[in-house]
Amino acid sequence: MSRLLQKVIAVLFCIGLISSFKSTDNPIVEIYKQPTANIESRVQDLLKKMTLEEKVAQMRMFHANKGVEFSEDGKLELSEVVKEKLTIGIGGIKNPGEHNTPEEAAELNNQLQKYIIENSRLGIPGFFVTESYNGVDAEGCTSFGRPINMASTYNRELVKRVYDAVGREARLRGLHLTHSPEADIVRDPRFGRMSEAFSEDTYLTTQMIINAVNGLQGDTEGLSATHIGAVTKHFAGYAQLSGGTNFASIEISPRTLIDEIFPPFEAAVKEANTLGIMASHGDLNGIASHANPWLLTEVLRDQWKFEGYVVSDANDIGRLHYFMKVAETQEEAALLGLLAGVDVDLYAEDAYALLPKMVKENPELMQYIDRSAARVLRTKFILGLFENPYVKVKKAKKEVRTAAHLTLAREADRESIVLLTNNGVLPLDGNKNMTLALVGPSLDETVKEQFASVVGENVQLVSEKGFDLTNKRRGIPELTEEKLQKEGIQKIINTAQNADVIVAVVGGDEYTSKEGFFTHAFGDRDSIDPVGLQDELILELKKLGKPVVIVLKHRRTLSVNTFAKEADALLDCWDLSEEGNYAIAEVLFGQVNPSGKLPVTVPRSIGQIPFHYSQKEINYKKGYLFAENTPLFDFGYGLSYTQFEYSDITLSDSNMTVDSYLTASVTITNTGDVKGKEVAQLYIKDLIGTVVRPMQELKGFEKIEIAPGESIQVSFKISPKMLEYTGLDMKKNLGIGDFELRIGRSSADFKTANFTLKSGKI
Amino acid sequence: MSRLLQKVIAVLFCIGLISSFKSTDNPIVEIYKQPTANIESRVQDLLKKMTLEEKVAQMRMFHANKGVEFSEDGKLELSEVVKEKLTIGIGGIKNPGEHNTPEEAAELNNQLQKYIIENSRLGIPGFFVTESYNGVDAEGCTSFGRPINMASTYNRELVKRVYDAVGREARLRGLHLTHSPEADIVRDPRFGRMSEAFSEDTYLTTQMIINAVNGLQGDTEGLSATHIGAVTKHFAGYAQLSGGTNFASIEISPRTLIDEIFPPFEAAVKEANTLGIMASHGDLNGIASHANPWLLTEVLRDQWKFEGYVVSDANDIGRLHYFMKVAETQEEAALLGLLAGVDVDLYAEDAYALLPKMVKENPELMQYIDRSAARVLRTKFILGLFENPYVKVKKAKKEVRTAAHLTLAREADRESIVLLTNNGVLPLDGNKNMTLALVGPSLDETVKEQFASVVGENVQLVSEKGFDLTNKRRGIPELTEEKLQKEGIQKIINTAQNADVIVAVVGGDEYTSKEGFFTHAFGDRDSIDPVGLQDELILELKKLGKPVVIVLKHRRTLSVNTFAKEADALLDCWDLSEEGNYAIAEVLFGQVNPSGKLPVTVPRSIGQIPFHYSQKEINYKKGYLFAENTPLFDFGYGLSYTQFEYSDITLSDSNMTVDSYLTASVTITNTGDVKGKEVAQLYIKDLIGTVVRPMQELKGFEKIEIAPGESIQVSFKISPKMLEYTGLDMKKNLGIGDFELRIGRSSADFKTANFTLKSGKI
Repeated sequence: MSRLLQKVIAVLFCIGLISSFKSTDNPIVEIYKQPTANIESRVQDLLKKMTLEEKVAQMRMFHANKGVEFSEDGKLELSEVVKEKLTIGIGGIKNPGEHNTPEEAAELNNQLQKYIIENSRLGIPGFFVTESYNGVDAEGCTSFGRPINMASTYNRELVKRVYDAVGREARLRGLHLTHSPEADIVRDPRFGRMSEAFSEDTYLTTQMIINAVNGLQGDTEGLSATHIGAVTKHFAGYAQLSGGTNFASIEISPRTLIDEIFPPFEAAVKEANTLGIMASHGDLNGIASHANPWLLTEVLRDQWKFEGYVVSDANDIGRLHYFMKVAETQEEAALLGLLAGVDVDLYAEDAYALLPKMVKENPELMQYIDRSAARVLRTKFILGLFENPYVKVKKAKKEVRTAAHLTLAREADRESIVLLTNNGVLPLDGNKNMTLALVGPSLDETVKEQFASVVGENVQLVSEKGFDLTNKRRGIPELTEEKLQKEGIQKIINTAQNADVIVAVVGGDEYTSKEGFFTHAFGDRDSIDPVGLQDELILELKKLGKPVVIVLKHRRTLSVNTFAKEADALLDCWDLSEEGNYAIAEVLFGQVNPSGKLPVTVPRSIGQIPFHYSQKEINYKKGYLFAENTPLFDFGYGLSYTQFEYSDITLSDSNMTVDSYLTASVTITNTGDVKGKEVAQLYIKDLIGTVVRPMQELKGFEKIEIAPGESIQVSFKISPKMLEYTGLDMKKNLGIGDFELRIGRSSADFKTANFTLKSGKI
Repeated sequence: MSRLLQKVIAVLFCIGLISSFKSTDNPIVEIYKQPTANIESRVQDLLKKMTLEEKVAQMRMFHANKGVEFSEDGKLELSEVVKEKLTIGIGGIKNPGEHNTPEEAAELNNQLQKYIIENSRLGIPGFFVTESYNGVDAEGCTSFGRPINMASTYNRELVKRVYDAVGREARLRGLHLTHSPEADIVRDPRFGRMSEAFSEDTYLTTQMIINAVNGLQGDTEGLSATHIGAVTKHFAGYAQLSGGTNFASIEISPRTLIDEIFPPFEAAVKEANTLGIMASHGDLNGIASHANPWLLTEVLRDQWKFEGYVVSDANDIGRLHYFMKVAETQEEAALLGLLAGVDVDLYAEDAYALLPKMVKENPELMQYIDRSAARVLRTKFILGLFENPYVKVKKAKKEVRTAAHLTLAREADRESIVLLTNNGVLPLDGNKNMTLALVGPSLDETVKEQFASVVGENVQLVSEKGFDLTNKRRGIPELTEEKLQKEGIQKIINTAQNADVIVAVVGGDEYTSKEGFFTHAFGDRDSIDPVGLQDELILELKKLGKPVVIVLKHRRTLSVNTFAKEADALLDCWDLSEEGNYAIAEVLFGQVNPSGKLPVTVPRSIGQIPFHYSQKEINYKKGYLFAENTPLFDFGYGLSYTQFEYSDITLSDSNMTVDSYLTASVTITNTGDVKGKEVAQLYIKDLIGTVVRPMQELKGFEKIEIAPGESIQVSFKISPKMLEYTGLDMKKNLGIGDFELRIGRSSADFKTANFTLKSGKI
């Protein structure tokens, strides 16, 4: 060793001594602990201090049901395995306190956070994660309507308020992130999870996603204290499953993927700053989504500049080996996920657990560990976890599931109910003396009580569920045997025969449409006919010669041909909030004028799919033999108790250029007797493209309230951006040429005007 | 003008004079007229002599029903419009003489050819084109079983003989080309044309296509005189229609397209030298197939070295404008088709008719005209049209629809019938006295007569069709009204009740599955349940307490749940030849032991699709609620009157390298009492891939006859080529790693052995 080198080392040593002396005696706060420091500096500072094992620990997450408990005397109890894990820190924990009240959960999560901080070397807090497609998925939180109900409202502001409430309730429990919302485009009603997403349409879903993410995250500003981070999922194409079964492969043209599936995700990233993205089960055109660098890095990071973190769906890193079979070993699975860009391995006890060993063998992998660990740390800094790791327990008790939130849930319900048919029987006159029979297998226990609080004393309520649609036998949901169903129908008839009006609540139950996990927990169907003897029930009820109003409760699109034909009125309620029956009663008795519109096309049979309204025009050229070749109900369709007339469609100009825009206007008049809300919908049809173009695409909507006799002009700005699509060269092209603009009350009922997009000046 | 230039022009002028003088006075045979000259020289020579208009005329084709007639006194009559067209020549004419006898057609086609040659400046003959999926589509030719029947035989040699007969019959009529066979992969039974293609499987279809093309073309050697050119269609992805309706858009991953859809086309080009390729209706992932240079030039020409000609499907060049809407005008449509590589515009009176004007305005287009015209001319030289433009009329009378061809049709029928269920009722004992009732709506007029010639005198035949499935009302096929069907069922019961055995012929008719052209000629269905009251018919027949054998005649896969459950035996006959009833009778009475195997998977309902056997393994992970999650019948399945036992599966080595191959063998023993034919099927499952791999893929089959008690060893060569697939880089990868080899009697019933493909030496 040269004398110079010895001298340098000695100096460095002294600096080290001095620094260590200072930090003990007169501590300098490390950068990562400085709240006012720039987040990037904090991340880098912290990363420098971490061992490989500590970094990898940040890339892992486990479920609280594995060793995290809250004892009867209010103490946190951790299993030895969990304690062992927490000594090197943890990325996050899923669902801690999910079965506790908000108050208990807040207490538990505080204790858990405290343990994590105090028992690991660097005191890095963990994030606690929930799911929340219809409210925080935990005990004692407000249960809102499903995403498909939210989309049915066509009301951006209302939806944002709902997700704002959800975000707040989650944070109050001591949670920080949610694996929601779903930005998937649902076009196959066989898929059991369809109602967890918003709609079949790209634009409508995008609008809902922007408002859901902004709501959950408190417009990003709420992230550090009052709200939670959204993890938008499932990236990408999750709902485009072959055969509609969960986990199945996805076959989609790259153009459709980019133009129709990506936009809600792109908006979640670019417009709403979603904190996280979850990858999709299965494969996309042959490439496992969790091992797809194009998807998770090129598109998400390089093109869209996403800076949050990517989490796996459940054990999907490990499944690259044992499910997707694109990895020979768990190590190879971990490598594929790591390189593709999956930052956090959810649940897995295998794949990412092997990373420390793998990095030691291949040090060049370190850069990917740093990349992912930094993204997780960045998320934690954004969430304010270093400054505000704990929540106020009493606040949780006071501010979760408040009266205001329940009112909000009901408000969303009111706007999400879609009136599909009505021969004039609705609204019912609550001032008349009548006996109302509430019957049918989709009736829930609260219906009579909730109805009673809405209707007046003139209305006498009787109810009879009759039968359950399904029964769980040996752990497997089965259809109730026909004999029992028939007995149930007879019970219903007995109850209904003395009523003046019959409200039949039919559709599905918790087992007829759900996430399919494995073979004894199917959730997808190969038919969309209502299950069991529900058609027979309706036919029997009709024989009584009384008005039959059908209330449809369901979680997937159903081809309700018989219901639509037989009912005097048909109300589509999807899956409302815990306040749902109030809203139904209000609509039935005209206290609320229905204003929901369908966020999907309703086919007449499963054999018609795909049947979304925005298919290519050539897909409608040929129909089917011996069949009615129209939808049962069109996308965007929904009736009101009043009538809206569309007139005077005008365009500010018949030409536009790539750097100008047009304004399209229409006048809507309420020609009926009651006030009501109407959703004016803007569709654009590209008359000639370089590639084959959709029949039409929703490009705008406005929900407005109009008084009887009143006329309101609604305007839409038409921008060149709306006319963009992926051309022959796989780049975004502007559709220079002629367009037809459609404004109306549904995708099948509109006024038109034409304009031309020119490339240069007009 | 310089004096030198003047001199050069003068010399050139003299040469011109001399040459013109010589050719008149002492003719030198022009190169294109020299039979021994190289075809390429002939093409170039001819092309040089042609005007722009004459070249474009070679790129057009019209239908003979537009102005080509054969008068009652045997004379050709052409409309003035046709005469005008023919003065500049024509590429080809579709279906001349289709309604004439073979002899008349030969005469007509000779006259037509003579007219074309003698009335155009350069005397270029036209080609006459037919269709031939089940025999030449013209009066008096042998009607064979459909392609799906051919595939059901799993007998390459037999299929080749059938198409050889078809090719000969066509040429004997004076035809030169056929717009067949269909290399499409049919996986959606909603599609009305599914039986015009061979199967759901890539390998089986490829084998059929090679033998069909080789048969039609006389192994290429027959092209100049005895056989016709095959035009393999529809390139590409035609059957992968969204919703199964004709013309609908196609969404498919580029990887699936290359690995599963392209191979039959690639084999038609590279292995069987198909003379032509027809492009596909509709679009492929957004790009209209007729305007897709990647498909028609890069893949077909550059990669596969195809040298034949590409023809449009019907008016599909013009339809780029008015149907696909990717062209603003007919001129733009013509330009798109021309540049993409469509050489001949079928039927169109618009698009390519505009080419001369377009070329005059844009001379750089001339190269594309030359390219396409050359391909058409090359085809004509290959077909020997310049040397042998005419056929012998008497030969047509003698050699079309010969006894030998009818026997061949029956031979193919015998091997194509698939025995799906049999509780022992079959074969029937023809030596016993019995009354056999032939009943059901799919019965044809010839059944009784044809059965009678097969069964002995002991068997008394009675028959009753009962009712028609459909009726054509106001030009639109409709289901027969229920009342008439019920009356028909009663008639059938009356006839059947005194019989000893009932054979119910059910399934479909000519309208229940066909090509859908336009809205009043639907051909696709949104259900695959048997139409009408056929299930009820079977249930009624079963009540008679007699054996009920079901003979299924149909043109699309049907979910015959009730038939399969109720029948004592179920014979799947698809759509047999004109000799079909003989073969059915022979099978029923055990004169023929059935040996057909299903070329498709039979789902239990339309809601299960896609349901082909070779989906990705992940597609089978999840099933449907309240449903049986297996096929009704598996791909490759079919029973025999004897039993075959598989044993001793062996592999020559458990390792192979990329430049070696393995031999897999299995012993098959006929353990029953009668001789029979068995189709030994080889499937390979790639255990781990770089992309998500199919569950299994058919890679070989051998049909062998085995005597009772006999054992035969069947061997398959396993080559690395069989293990290839399109990898992450979109190039063909060898699947280095472990494979499971399956040999058995269907895709669901096999013995296994494992091997490893290693990259280098073992």
